[in-house]
Amino acid sequence: MSLKISQSTVILPSCPGIIAYASVGGKKEGEGPLARYFDLLNDDTSFGEKSWEKAESQLQKDCSSKVLEKAGLSPGDIDIMFAGDLLNQCIGSAYGSREMDIPFIGLYGACSTMAESLALASVFVDNAVANRALALTSSHFCSAERQFRFPLEYGGQRTPTAQWTATASGSVIVGQSDKAPFVRAVCFGKIKDMGVKDVNNMGAAMAPAACDTIMAYLTDTNTTPDDYDMIYTGDLGEVGSSLLIELLQRENIDISKKHNDCGLMLYDREQQDVHAGGSGCGCSASVLCSYILRRIEDGTMKNVLFLATGAMMSPTSLQQGESIPGIAHLVHISNTKG
Amino acid sequence: MSLKISQSTVILPSCPGIIAYASVGGKKEGEGPLARYFDLLNDDTSFGEKSWEKAESQLQKDCSSKVLEKAGLSPGDIDIMFAGDLLNQCIGSAYGSREMDIPFIGLYGACSTMAESLALASVFVDNAVANRALALTSSHFCSAERQFRFPLEYGGQRTPTAQWTATASGSVIVGQSDKAPFVRAVCFGKIKDMGVKDVNNMGAAMAPAACDTIMAYLTDTNTTPDDYDMIYTGDLGEVGSSLLIELLQRENIDISKKHNDCGLMLYDREQQDVHAGGSGCGCSASVLCSYILRRIEDGTMKNVLFLATGAMMSPTSLQQGESIPGIAHLVHISNTKG
Repeated sequence: MSLKISQSTVILPSCPGIIAYASVGGKKEGEGPLARYFDLLNDDTSFGEKSWEKAESQLQKDCSSKVLEKAGLSPGDIDIMFAGDLLNQCIGSAYGSREMDIPFIGLYGACSTMAESLALASVFVDNAVANRALALTSSHFCSAERQFRFPLEYGGQRTPTAQWTATASGSVIVGQSDKAPFVRAVCFGKIKDMGVKDVNNMGAAMAPAACDTIMAYLTDTNTTPDDYDMIYTGDLGEVGSSLLIELLQRENIDISKKHNDCGLMLYDREQQDVHAGGSGCGCSASVLCSYILRRIEDGTMKNVLFLATGAMMSPTSLQQGESIPGIAHLVHISNTKG
Repeated sequence: MSLKISQSTVILPSCPGIIAYASVGGKKEGEGPLARYFDLLNDDTSFGEKSWEKAESQLQKDCSSKVLEKAGLSPGDIDIMFAGDLLNQCIGSAYGSREMDIPFIGLYGACSTMAESLALASVFVDNAVANRALALTSSHFCSAERQFRFPLEYGGQRTPTAQWTATASGSVIVGQSDKAPFVRAVCFGKIKDMGVKDVNNMGAAMAPAACDTIMAYLTDTNTTPDDYDMIYTGDLGEVGSSLLIELLQRENIDISKKHNDCGLMLYDREQQDVHAGGSGCGCSASVLCSYILRRIEDGTMKNVLFLATGAMMSPTSLQQGESIPGIAHLVHISNTKG
């Protein structure tokens, strides 16, 4: 049974296991530095479908099928799934999961969805509300560009602070297990809006939320960055990462030697022309479910804080002059149960 | 600690209480048969804002402020909030909650969001993951018409099977309490897609999901419709309600004398020109948080099944020839703990 120690932080004493994880990427992800850690890479950006939206649903379906296969389970073995994506009305998830026949909780957390879904799945398993819970998200460069910026055919210029939406999906099955990785605790984030209005600089809009959640978790657990091998955010990109480090330094917390950002890890920024880094729900999801969890499982890293960050705006809210609210949820993942 | 009795159904032995509930409506809701049960009615459809989207955020903010006021609590007393709405990227909820400073879980369940958020809040409280959890959703006729159908200025004709999106919000605070209403159990629904493609007949698209969830819950708990005072769906409207009754009759389950639909209750269909009934996240949310919970609290009804139903499509998915996936989550609300 979970142990709530503050408004935001919940310790999971049973340390639910991540019994399987899977990642799927597209062509560009297959050319990046983490390519060898992916379960599936598909050079066909359409994933065999006739629209970018259908492609994203297929991408998600490929990822949930893969994680079930790796766990040796069928959909009937899963009690509940938590899924969401960036598309209007979250159709990537709804259409990607409609044949699964698993109780479905639709989420919208923008790019924070992987941490949001993993945190909820872990809480459900820790309290035996589910024996096994699936967490899943995705993004697709082409569907996101069309919806949030310009159709690809327009050939719009990108600003230096712009990030590149990953064509990728990540999924995890959480259940009681004796095998690492384990989820030790979660910290649910609050919406923070510091007035940033530049849609091409969402890292800056999300950094204050990441700062707030990290500070809450370290304070609640009486720990410091030294207690963790790494603190991974996703996806602040280059601009947001620098800002996060600076914001925490003002509070006398130095994460500079312990921090990396999924948006800076998925691509080779010198070779791959992704400007400030990767983004999209699928970026942090696929980095978690390819590189990070593997390194925790094999013991290279013992304790990791994973924070996915979301920018909770829409094109309509920005056109109406609104600023960008950010959010960040945290999951403490460990190689040991205690 | 919750007692999971099937893939979908979770019994909540502590019977978390609904310690406060609030409903806010617009002009049309104030002219309907449930007007006297609302906490706030605002004749100004703009809610004092400059856009319909900002109006919806303000509507939600009014509702969460009201429920806190009724509970005599401040945001710091709430551990977590579950919220969502119909707008692209759920901006009704993100902007409506950004000043609340409460850990925030964004949901997307289309019109099922009230049951989804209430079910999650109840599970969190039953397991002491939260002492108090807030569930919240909204819809706005004008923001929904612009986004899903036509801008109001276009003056489009509506088909007889079309439903009317409510301008309304409902919110609930769940916490341990000795006072009714209590949440006794929840049943998380699966996505069901029977191939309906008519966006003006979403009731028919959602009825199979409602049928599936009701059957699962009755089977899991070994109960019949006779064990409940009422089974409320929201929002199937007239067409979907008839279909639901027919689908269940084929399984030898007769809910015809126990069933009503929030979409048929919020408006006077003869006087108010709403065609097949009300719809939108705010419809079932406001009917729950005005009429239904009041009647459970005062003992007029002892046991109620509340099922909010969602149509998980988007304008883009329909334009691409997709059918409409439906979902329905169930919450068993009671006047007693056992």
